[in-house]
Amino acid sequence: MVTVSGIFDAERVAVVGATERDGSVGRAITRNLLADFEGEVIPVNPNVDRVFDRPCPDDLSETEADMAVIVVPPEPALEAVETAGRNGIDDLVVITAGFGETGSEGARRERDLRSLAREYDLDVVGPNSLGVISTPSGLNATFAPRNARPGSTSFMSQSGALVTAILEWADDRSIGFKDIVSLGNKAILDEADFVETWGTDPGTDIVLGYLEGIKDGQSFIETTREVTRETPVVVLKSGRTEAGSRAASSHTGAIAGSQRAYQAGLRKAGAIRVESTEALFDAGAMLAGGSLPDTDGVAVVTNAGGPGVLATDAIGDSATEMASFEAETRRRLAEALPETANVHNPIDVIGDASAERFRDALEIVLSDPSVGSAVVIACPSAVLSFDALAETLAAIRRERSIPLAVCLMGGSSVEAPTETLAETNTPTYFDPARAVEALGSLYRYREIRTRENHSPTTFDVDTEAARSILERVETRSDNRLGIESMGLLEAYGISTVDAEIVGSPDAARRAAERIGGDVVMKIVSPDILHKTDIGGVEVGIAPTDVRDVYESLLTRAKNYQPDAEIIGVQIQELVDLDRSVETIVGMNRDPQFGPVVLFGLGGVFVEVLEDTTVRIAPVSKAEAEGMIDDVDSAPLLRGARGREPVDEEAIAETIQRLSQLVTDFPAILELDINPLVATPDGVAAIDLRLTVDPETL
Amino acid sequence: MVTVSGIFDAERVAVVGATERDGSVGRAITRNLLADFEGEVIPVNPNVDRVFDRPCPDDLSETEADMAVIVVPPEPALEAVETAGRNGIDDLVVITAGFGETGSEGARRERDLRSLAREYDLDVVGPNSLGVISTPSGLNATFAPRNARPGSTSFMSQSGALVTAILEWADDRSIGFKDIVSLGNKAILDEADFVETWGTDPGTDIVLGYLEGIKDGQSFIETTREVTRETPVVVLKSGRTEAGSRAASSHTGAIAGSQRAYQAGLRKAGAIRVESTEALFDAGAMLAGGSLPDTDGVAVVTNAGGPGVLATDAIGDSATEMASFEAETRRRLAEALPETANVHNPIDVIGDASAERFRDALEIVLSDPSVGSAVVIACPSAVLSFDALAETLAAIRRERSIPLAVCLMGGSSVEAPTETLAETNTPTYFDPARAVEALGSLYRYREIRTRENHSPTTFDVDTEAARSILERVETRSDNRLGIESMGLLEAYGISTVDAEIVGSPDAARRAAERIGGDVVMKIVSPDILHKTDIGGVEVGIAPTDVRDVYESLLTRAKNYQPDAEIIGVQIQELVDLDRSVETIVGMNRDPQFGPVVLFGLGGVFVEVLEDTTVRIAPVSKAEAEGMIDDVDSAPLLRGARGREPVDEEAIAETIQRLSQLVTDFPAILELDINPLVATPDGVAAIDLRLTVDPETL
Repeated sequence: MVTVSGIFDAERVAVVGATERDGSVGRAITRNLLADFEGEVIPVNPNVDRVFDRPCPDDLSETEADMAVIVVPPEPALEAVETAGRNGIDDLVVITAGFGETGSEGARRERDLRSLAREYDLDVVGPNSLGVISTPSGLNATFAPRNARPGSTSFMSQSGALVTAILEWADDRSIGFKDIVSLGNKAILDEADFVETWGTDPGTDIVLGYLEGIKDGQSFIETTREVTRETPVVVLKSGRTEAGSRAASSHTGAIAGSQRAYQAGLRKAGAIRVESTEALFDAGAMLAGGSLPDTDGVAVVTNAGGPGVLATDAIGDSATEMASFEAETRRRLAEALPETANVHNPIDVIGDASAERFRDALEIVLSDPSVGSAVVIACPSAVLSFDALAETLAAIRRERSIPLAVCLMGGSSVEAPTETLAETNTPTYFDPARAVEALGSLYRYREIRTRENHSPTTFDVDTEAARSILERVETRSDNRLGIESMGLLEAYGISTVDAEIVGSPDAARRAAERIGGDVVMKIVSPDILHKTDIGGVEVGIAPTDVRDVYESLLTRAKNYQPDAEIIGVQIQELVDLDRSVETIVGMNRDPQFGPVVLFGLGGVFVEVLEDTTVRIAPVSKAEAEGMIDDVDSAPLLRGARGREPVDEEAIAETIQRLSQLVTDFPAILELDINPLVATPDGVAAIDLRLTVDPETL
Repeated sequence: MVTVSGIFDAERVAVVGATERDGSVGRAITRNLLADFEGEVIPVNPNVDRVFDRPCPDDLSETEADMAVIVVPPEPALEAVETAGRNGIDDLVVITAGFGETGSEGARRERDLRSLAREYDLDVVGPNSLGVISTPSGLNATFAPRNARPGSTSFMSQSGALVTAILEWADDRSIGFKDIVSLGNKAILDEADFVETWGTDPGTDIVLGYLEGIKDGQSFIETTREVTRETPVVVLKSGRTEAGSRAASSHTGAIAGSQRAYQAGLRKAGAIRVESTEALFDAGAMLAGGSLPDTDGVAVVTNAGGPGVLATDAIGDSATEMASFEAETRRRLAEALPETANVHNPIDVIGDASAERFRDALEIVLSDPSVGSAVVIACPSAVLSFDALAETLAAIRRERSIPLAVCLMGGSSVEAPTETLAETNTPTYFDPARAVEALGSLYRYREIRTRENHSPTTFDVDTEAARSILERVETRSDNRLGIESMGLLEAYGISTVDAEIVGSPDAARRAAERIGGDVVMKIVSPDILHKTDIGGVEVGIAPTDVRDVYESLLTRAKNYQPDAEIIGVQIQELVDLDRSVETIVGMNRDPQFGPVVLFGLGGVFVEVLEDTTVRIAPVSKAEAEGMIDDVDSAPLLRGARGREPVDEEAIAETIQRLSQLVTDFPAILELDINPLVATPDGVAAIDLRLTVDPETL
């Protein structure tokens, strides 16, 4: 991880490929730089002597630049990168396209670019980037038609066109930025680098990102978790849906990880996820207010009942809640407001309210201890001046740090008051639902900021025993291990059901007698995946029948697949189904985020209802407990329908131990404990399947 | 139901309470009428001779008005209504507040108003209304500060303030209206009346409504089902959430029905439901285009990959789908577009596309048979003129009836092109997600318009037998009937399990022998609701044990509740649980919509997962089948986990027969068949509970 502030703090910027040629990108970038940049602009071009009246050296070696923007075609671009490296210019923005986003030749060039960056320790934005902007120095090293206004929001985008669009749109709404970067192909610098940089940048209060993928999930999680303690990070991640993910892959050429892994990864990272461009900037504007609610309750103050109900609905849909006022607050409201006003939340100050009445009501409710924020809704009326209301609300915002979302439900009459409120970083909306959605980002951020990022527990385990079991896979044709490897779980302290694998009818009988009571018997073979389907499992066998069943299991297996390797028959304790609930704990490995751990209830809940939840490993205690809370069927673990609650703590511990196992052994590609039976007295793994990559062991 | 077009077509409008007094509602309305109305305005006020230079009669009897707007205080308002009635003025708009929305005195006045309306057969808007607007004649009988522009959308709102807000907001966006009505308290005319009126109004193409409640659910369903064949009806129903519903009740004073009933009712009515003010008008603008997609597929044409992925995600979330092009389409696209363009959907015409390239790509994809509509996304670029693009798209819209949603992702440069596109009723957006959401309303309307509103099947049933069983409730203390009334289901052709209620151990034995095999035995008592909890149910009793079990069931019941009335013991056939799935079919009565029928799978699915669905009775065959499709656990009926599929048709028929029963007998307040056991061979009701209102029988 690197801090790339050099790119935004550059003082002497060279443009390799600067030109006056009409319609060229080189011209656009040079002009943009010359227009506003406080530092020095150095055109570089071997074919001309001067560009826009500035002397134009042939290459970067002849400059004193501390950053270079490269717009020449791909091969000369690579040469320019090398020259930059040799001459100690280590901050580069490669605008040039024709790298990883195009065929195999481009991919080769991107590899070369990466080698050069490594060799000379270069910070490179792009390639295939629109460029970078940093407003404090007026740096606009992009070819976009508009520059950004100054502000405290920094924005990264995996789409250059979206930067162009946002620049136009934001300019017309007086929305400002600190830094902007078009990430391009992310060959060297990626989203995590910019999150880290902005996390320590005193000029950046909020980070917004449009991302189509995350290059290194674990590094993004680590960096972002740290940064979000002080600076909110809001992410619009596209390719959320199957269709969108296909479109994103074909657009960026990157392999997309699973959507569930992204969801779990962004959550673990503490990024606030939004689903549309509007929501990204709505959240940004709300977070720019700088104040967070200190309790959950939202007060709604409105001069119109209907919009108040719409706001209440939106609060009902959100993670926030309607504040319940103290009696004293209601008493004061009743005193301050006309008789027909509603002093319960939402407060209707009624249609003839002036700005003063809004202020009186707000002052009262904001003092109520249950109120953490307020939504103010004003419809046009003969007695209400939106201008006066905006002044009043701006004054309240200057006095108090409590967040406000304001709906001015009018047309052009809201423009001036919107500006007034924007000066105190108070966003305004027409639609109450949208105001509440934006307010929700504050509550989400408050939760992220106050959550404790517990380190995962490290359990005392026997890694050597586990390794030797995993090494068995080297003798297998298909990289798979099954119930014969339950010792792997035991090595990591995960309880397993009492069981034994035996190789003869007599041994089966002895095992059954040792275990006691009726038993379960299962054929054990790496070649037979669906044991139940071929009659390879028998449940509730009395000790006297164990020998016969042993023989018939073997016969069935041989009939089904004469050449199957038979390891033996497992004799297993019979679990009391009336007191137990079947669960599943599993794991697979995501290309971006690494090990993803899954939990759910077994049988119909996972197979039919798909009621499961995932987290990125390593999983902390709080995360494991959260997984149990997540599933809809959780009440079945908690005594629903008159049953005794199972030992949830033992489930949570199993999830954490599994997380430790798959983190310790990257060779484990997939693993399922199915079922893990939970009872009031603990848990026991009944069956196990895993796939191991022998190369990684 | 009445058609209230008289209100919008009035030619001579009297204002009772007209005045020049500054700041008064009477002045505002009189001025608004005088400003734009093509007809005659007649001020009425006994205290002055002239208002705004017009002669001012003392009361309505001295006028030739065909409509009166009443703004005087409540008691004089009632007098004016009576005078209107006596003088044949039967279209009235009562602006005056102080009726049902305030205490008991107000409620009394509202009842008086209703009696007068009935007595003189009056059409009355309000009371407590902002007024009405009809743009063709310039009628603005409201006290809002702005009039509406002409258009073909009619809008009704249960919030007057929202009308004021929308008038301002819409005016600044050049959005026009045909008629607008502020519904007020809906004492006489309600939402169904206006839906019906606008359904036959050639000037109205789209009906939009903001509703906090629906007065008569069944009449709204009937009217709207008919109207939506030709005219889309879009509804923003507030009070969706529990908090919102409480807020709406306190605001309107109406008893809110259940949210599920509203959802089912609006669906049955064929109303397009939206969840925010923006979405209401986004849908309105999209539907105003007048063309519907003829297939599901959406084509996306963009000059920027990122926004294309965002649109694809939004399509993935919606009821629409990304179109898959024919090979010929892809071939033509490849020929027309540069090499690096993407010819798969979303089509990226790449950053250097001109308006002509957009046109070429669109012309090709719109000819593909899989394409029913298109989303066009344009980011600013040096070579693309938004104006030229808008002209191009407007030309395409004039030639073809295919719907387009256009994203012009810029700032003020989009204003003129937005106007150009608005002239062809083509809405524009910044955010691709919002464009797709609006487009979704077309697909929703297409589905509504093409769905067949099958009449419910009328089964041949024995209503007399059913009635005599229901009448048993007259002898009960608590209005409840139970399994002893299974004959009610049989009278309506719903299969019940083979069972008999007996009164002695010997009779029990005989019944068990007749039924055959092991049986289930249940205590039957109107006083014991939770039979299982007191050990009042025994399963799998061998015929030889039936006598003993009879005695012990009776003992348990008497120990539990010595004074309980014991009807007997039910001896029931034992159903093969391995081949059956427990379901629930139930019903309750909603204050607005009447009988609401429920279906779900039994046990954990209803109790823990709440996986149920509801419809408003009467339920057609298609609706009953749709209910089975709706539940998440439906695969368990359809052979999930290796079981034989159950007889779904028998379930659907049971739902319909139950629907007929509760429609025939409004006295049935609640009814649950729980469980209704479904097997591959049919269904059987096992247990029954219902509540009956003897007064309604």
